[in-house]
Amino acid sequence: MESLLVTYQIRADADEIEARALGVAVEQSIEMPLQAVRDPAILDEIVGKVESIQEEAPGLFRVAIRFSAAITGMETTQLLNVLFGNTSMQPDISLVDAELPPSLLAAFPGPRFGLPGLRAFTGAYDRPLTCTALKPMGSSPEELAAICRAFALGGIDIIKDDHGLANQAFAPFAERVRACQAAVDKVYAETGHRAIYAPNLSGGPSALWEQTDIVRELGVGMVMASPMLIGLPTYDELVREHIDVPILGHPALGGCLHIAPELLFGKLYRLIGSDAVIYPNYGGRFGYSKQMCLDLAENLRTPWGDLAPAAPGPAGGMTVDRVDEMVDFYGVDTILLIGGGLLIARERLQEQSAAFVAQVKRSAG
Amino acid sequence: MESLLVTYQIRADADEIEARALGVAVEQSIEMPLQAVRDPAILDEIVGKVESIQEEAPGLFRVAIRFSAAITGMETTQLLNVLFGNTSMQPDISLVDAELPPSLLAAFPGPRFGLPGLRAFTGAYDRPLTCTALKPMGSSPEELAAICRAFALGGIDIIKDDHGLANQAFAPFAERVRACQAAVDKVYAETGHRAIYAPNLSGGPSALWEQTDIVRELGVGMVMASPMLIGLPTYDELVREHIDVPILGHPALGGCLHIAPELLFGKLYRLIGSDAVIYPNYGGRFGYSKQMCLDLAENLRTPWGDLAPAAPGPAGGMTVDRVDEMVDFYGVDTILLIGGGLLIARERLQEQSAAFVAQVKRSAG
Repeated sequence: MESLLVTYQIRADADEIEARALGVAVEQSIEMPLQAVRDPAILDEIVGKVESIQEEAPGLFRVAIRFSAAITGMETTQLLNVLFGNTSMQPDISLVDAELPPSLLAAFPGPRFGLPGLRAFTGAYDRPLTCTALKPMGSSPEELAAICRAFALGGIDIIKDDHGLANQAFAPFAERVRACQAAVDKVYAETGHRAIYAPNLSGGPSALWEQTDIVRELGVGMVMASPMLIGLPTYDELVREHIDVPILGHPALGGCLHIAPELLFGKLYRLIGSDAVIYPNYGGRFGYSKQMCLDLAENLRTPWGDLAPAAPGPAGGMTVDRVDEMVDFYGVDTILLIGGGLLIARERLQEQSAAFVAQVKRSAG
Repeated sequence: MESLLVTYQIRADADEIEARALGVAVEQSIEMPLQAVRDPAILDEIVGKVESIQEEAPGLFRVAIRFSAAITGMETTQLLNVLFGNTSMQPDISLVDAELPPSLLAAFPGPRFGLPGLRAFTGAYDRPLTCTALKPMGSSPEELAAICRAFALGGIDIIKDDHGLANQAFAPFAERVRACQAAVDKVYAETGHRAIYAPNLSGGPSALWEQTDIVRELGVGMVMASPMLIGLPTYDELVREHIDVPILGHPALGGCLHIAPELLFGKLYRLIGSDAVIYPNYGGRFGYSKQMCLDLAENLRTPWGDLAPAAPGPAGGMTVDRVDEMVDFYGVDTILLIGGGLLIARERLQEQSAAFVAQVKRSAG
């Protein structure tokens, strides 16, 4: 029977770590005392098995536990539950990594377009893609469309909604998306530069499906959603059943201490179909380390079963004068996202956008 | 304009706390530099306002920030995003509490049955309700139904699925629910005791809606789901649109450091319609404090707008010999849940269940 290998970091005394590790193996599978189990096959096949315990630092252990793939039901909700359901409530345990067997990987589509698809859509090869964010919330659809136009005229590849743009009264989804898509269509007609507008999908399933109808009707080229806000299983179904354009995964509500970002954003968001994933860059305002960011990016891009590579989208406090450094660090198979760092140019927004685009081309040249 | 008051705990140096607090106010609203905002009305009405900063301990601050209710779009997804979206990725900030204005509260149905409804369904007044969990995963539907029968013969009020029972091949949802509901129906016909079986709903929206069709068709009296696994907005829609029986909220994936359980399980799970909420009891294996558990229970039960009170369901390593203590601590308006502590009786499961029920009646007497 196929199995997954899940790695946790546990803070514990050396003399209790074996019991703690076994506790997690039981908690994440049958969640009951072993002596209460009557069927020996359940002890053999269903209960998680502690495979290794390594002390990383005094009182800090890396524990690998093997679970039967069958207990995940081969779908997102129960996979999440097996990985970290009840154990998420243990303050001294983090979920660090997961290796999935071929049968489980094959149950997920992964990115349907991935980085190659994004390159084909934007026509941008041999350099990072440029991306920015429409803000601030509180603006009307017309105001957002005007900002969108300036970004597009500046030559940006992907213009995404701020993840805080939902369906508020000041800019309802349908009106906002209509206005912003019209803005990029107009710039394409005028200049030949086709910027892709990616609205933020937000809400319960019915609202999401309605929003995808609007996306399809208007010929919108990409969407964004936050898996932790709408729920990973709902995101999964959104991708499989309701959209036929690439999707950007946004990290909102993704926390940072209990589930390693390299796993959550790097592997799980790719697994459930993200073509690109936005995450906090090192050196910005979120305290992610360089190594964490590199591992996360590699998890998104590296060969993994039959899954297409997804594009890493480091963001958060990025500026034009860091582009060189970013291209050096991540290489060209990346989306570079600058939001506030462009908007701060105010009336010179189009020029600042063009400077960003030019810098990316220079840095990659 | 109505507003919500959100409280964060921030670990920072005293000389940087004002800047950090303002940073959260901006991050959770417009997420861009203030000097990039061109419309003064957005600075006035949309950007969060730091209302108070209190030092709780050296280097640990309690910061209250007021946000316009309008930016939440009056629905679950964007409410979550405003409360903690990007800030969840700051390692030194926790979300502690939220006070919602009447307009926002009125946009949510809250518990449709609540504790009064659960009492009416079970016919149990003046004492805590008894609850247990069907385990272990890996059992067949027939094996689970046999355990369900023993629980029901023992007189338990509510028999819920283990939250790890999803739609795995060893006990597919439809077969499991049919077998277990038949077991409680049969015990009712034989003895007059009507135990309520609460299957675990799990999966993406389509799978969930299909499961609710089965629930309705079989006359199942209650359901359970994990909001953090399926997504809070999907849980909200599940409650509003797809079920007409009470629902238990399970805390799986609810984490423990970054969002206070008193808020997540005590307020938000009630807001989105949970009639009862299961959570780790103090003195069990999850390290919740007595005060945390009491505050959580009070948040579920206390008057809150027009929302019905929900039942607290402390659980996790509970045993029959702690019933007296639990009743003293929580009072009678509670669900007491013992799972493994009953199953450990193995062949004497029915007797142990009856002993639990008898102890609850004695303790409340």
